[in-house]
Amino acid sequence: MRCEVVAIGTELLLGQIIDTNSSWIGEQLTQIGVDSLYQTKVGDNHSRIIATIKTALERSDAVICCGGLGPTQDDITREAIAEIMDVELIFDSSIAETIKKMFVSRGRSMPDNNLKQAEIPEGASPIPKQPGTAPGLICPIGQKVLYAVPGVPYEMHQMMKTAILPDLIARAGHKSIIKSRVLKTWGYSESRLAEILENRISELDEAGNPTIAFLASGIEGLKVRITAKGNTQAEAEELIEKEEENVRQLLGSSIFATDNETMESTIINLLKKSGLTLSLVEVTSGGIASARLSAADPFGEVFFGSIVPRSSGTRKQLLNVPQDIIGTSEGAKQLAIAARALFKTDIGLSTTGEHDVLGVTKRGQTYLGIANQNGAQVEQVKLPGDYERVRQFSVISLLNSLRLSLSKKN
Amino acid sequence: MRCEVVAIGTELLLGQIIDTNSSWIGEQLTQIGVDSLYQTKVGDNHSRIIATIKTALERSDAVICCGGLGPTQDDITREAIAEIMDVELIFDSSIAETIKKMFVSRGRSMPDNNLKQAEIPEGASPIPKQPGTAPGLICPIGQKVLYAVPGVPYEMHQMMKTAILPDLIARAGHKSIIKSRVLKTWGYSESRLAEILENRISELDEAGNPTIAFLASGIEGLKVRITAKGNTQAEAEELIEKEEENVRQLLGSSIFATDNETMESTIINLLKKSGLTLSLVEVTSGGIASARLSAADPFGEVFFGSIVPRSSGTRKQLLNVPQDIIGTSEGAKQLAIAARALFKTDIGLSTTGEHDVLGVTKRGQTYLGIANQNGAQVEQVKLPGDYERVRQFSVISLLNSLRLSLSKKN
Repeated sequence: MRCEVVAIGTELLLGQIIDTNSSWIGEQLTQIGVDSLYQTKVGDNHSRIIATIKTALERSDAVICCGGLGPTQDDITREAIAEIMDVELIFDSSIAETIKKMFVSRGRSMPDNNLKQAEIPEGASPIPKQPGTAPGLICPIGQKVLYAVPGVPYEMHQMMKTAILPDLIARAGHKSIIKSRVLKTWGYSESRLAEILENRISELDEAGNPTIAFLASGIEGLKVRITAKGNTQAEAEELIEKEEENVRQLLGSSIFATDNETMESTIINLLKKSGLTLSLVEVTSGGIASARLSAADPFGEVFFGSIVPRSSGTRKQLLNVPQDIIGTSEGAKQLAIAARALFKTDIGLSTTGEHDVLGVTKRGQTYLGIANQNGAQVEQVKLPGDYERVRQFSVISLLNSLRLSLSKKN
Repeated sequence: MRCEVVAIGTELLLGQIIDTNSSWIGEQLTQIGVDSLYQTKVGDNHSRIIATIKTALERSDAVICCGGLGPTQDDITREAIAEIMDVELIFDSSIAETIKKMFVSRGRSMPDNNLKQAEIPEGASPIPKQPGTAPGLICPIGQKVLYAVPGVPYEMHQMMKTAILPDLIARAGHKSIIKSRVLKTWGYSESRLAEILENRISELDEAGNPTIAFLASGIEGLKVRITAKGNTQAEAEELIEKEEENVRQLLGSSIFATDNETMESTIINLLKKSGLTLSLVEVTSGGIASARLSAADPFGEVFFGSIVPRSSGTRKQLLNVPQDIIGTSEGAKQLAIAARALFKTDIGLSTTGEHDVLGVTKRGQTYLGIANQNGAQVEQVKLPGDYERVRQFSVISLLNSLRLSLSKKN
């Protein structure tokens, strides 16, 4: 079964809003084993909306239109669908009542504009769940189906979960289940990863199930995705687990996380397992590592805290590290030791680099410090990109080094 | 002139990566007055890539393909383009040399796979600027043109700016200049903003130049964009400036930044102007504010630093704030005063909230503290969303309060 997504709205083409809806829908369709081979964005233009939906209906069994169901003049998805179905728009008084009640419950009166949202193509069914003023629509087109949902992500999600995904599953009459797992890696380049996996990918491609694919994720490393089909949940799961073992043997410790896990959640878990606590001093990264680690350990059970010392006075006064060694290997060492001492933790980390003193347009060496009871070690790295990228890369590089050293101990 | 965008990659359809590239390209095309009427995502499938590009070339004058230029088996954009051009792929030794040098400069040897990236369709020109291993391509197709750029945003941006946008401008032979300016606001709801601007938008829509539009940007507030056309740069600029005055009169102090300015760059500028210094203690926000402020003040000229105290011990020991008042208004007050004292700055800020002690799934009040020589003031806010959104909203809310208080003094 194939289902396309058509995202409607001139603001999407102009780049004023990023189309996250299509991606989210694509992910949901994958989970239920429905292929989504094309996703198209089109502006608020009557004839182009119609042409796009018609093309999509020709090559797929179902189409989900997202956006253009609001109360303004720009919102013309309803009219376009009525023309495709070759029917009139009819006023649905129960939808109008629902919309009116929403305004009343917010203590406001309904602008007349909103009554437009109660007009639906004849023969279309409104989606019962209606979190906002726009009703979703299920429109039969011969043996195919066209769904319309609002562009507001929260409203769209509700309608997908309660009506569209169940309807698609029923239509597909699926017996097979599709599952996937993502392994996140740090350390290999994309081409090196490709080389390592090349033979295995060819082997799998011949059999066709499971399959593996990989994708670059910038400062989050490279991801390897294993996808398997089975007649049952357990069958698909078993195929994935077997293949995961193969991939893990090939990629070893470069794999730092699975699915929704992150580098920081992996580290927090390793720390908890080891009974170790952590603190840091962020010069180069200026708080980025703290923001990530604090999200993964909201009550400070193992990540005790950090200092972001921006002025030279602060570095001297709070950490006793003189300004003239900031941006050097010795500086990274002393800062990591100072973090450990100040927060009374087992491990202290630091980031500093030549750009911290030379100027942000000058790219230089970055120094990443890790201190423990035996002293401190410093890793020297040359990170790519502009100032902000160097800051981001310094964090993932530092956390990865810590992960590797913690993994060895476990 | 019309230019479509085709984003290539199965991971985009599966929702594993959100296609931000098309949006960014759409924004750039708008700036140079080129219409982008459709944007399509297609997977790593030879025949579907070819079909999609051909359709795009039929209805537009230019097409930008994004992605699929990497060194792996999945990367088949080069092959698809060669087939569309009806030519062979030829090996370009100077591109191979460039790629080899990149590996050498990183102290690594080039995997053989990467040589694939030096194969380009006969008749295509490589884009001179090549920030990564994938060269961009300019491929003439009759009177039309097909560009290919890598999916890595950083690399794609470089190629768009240095080669593709100038090439499109030259092809379009534009005489009219399009300029736009974005005013960023914080404080009004989307519907309130719409109400305030309604009459002005109607007036402008009749005349057609300039125009204003607005768009929600989540935790970054609402943006109002003014767009103007002129025969010269100066003419467009003048129209914008006049309209900016009108909008500023309607929206007043809710406007916190223009174009690439951010809330944090506005604050750093206000601090510099006032000769004031800043520090903070981040409990709820855990480093997010520091990461943003440090990016805007890389050498700590006015933002002296922060403490992210995650454990209760740290809060007591470093800041002398007992755990039992964390997450209260009094806690926010004492933390802001402690920040100011510890870093010896004019202003101290703090974030803390009920979720810091109750549990991250419980949403409660958030307290934002601002301390100066006269004591501390605390703002109490109820922020929407999950834990991460509350953290993000606490930062923008706090920084906006600081901005308003600094603006009053100037």
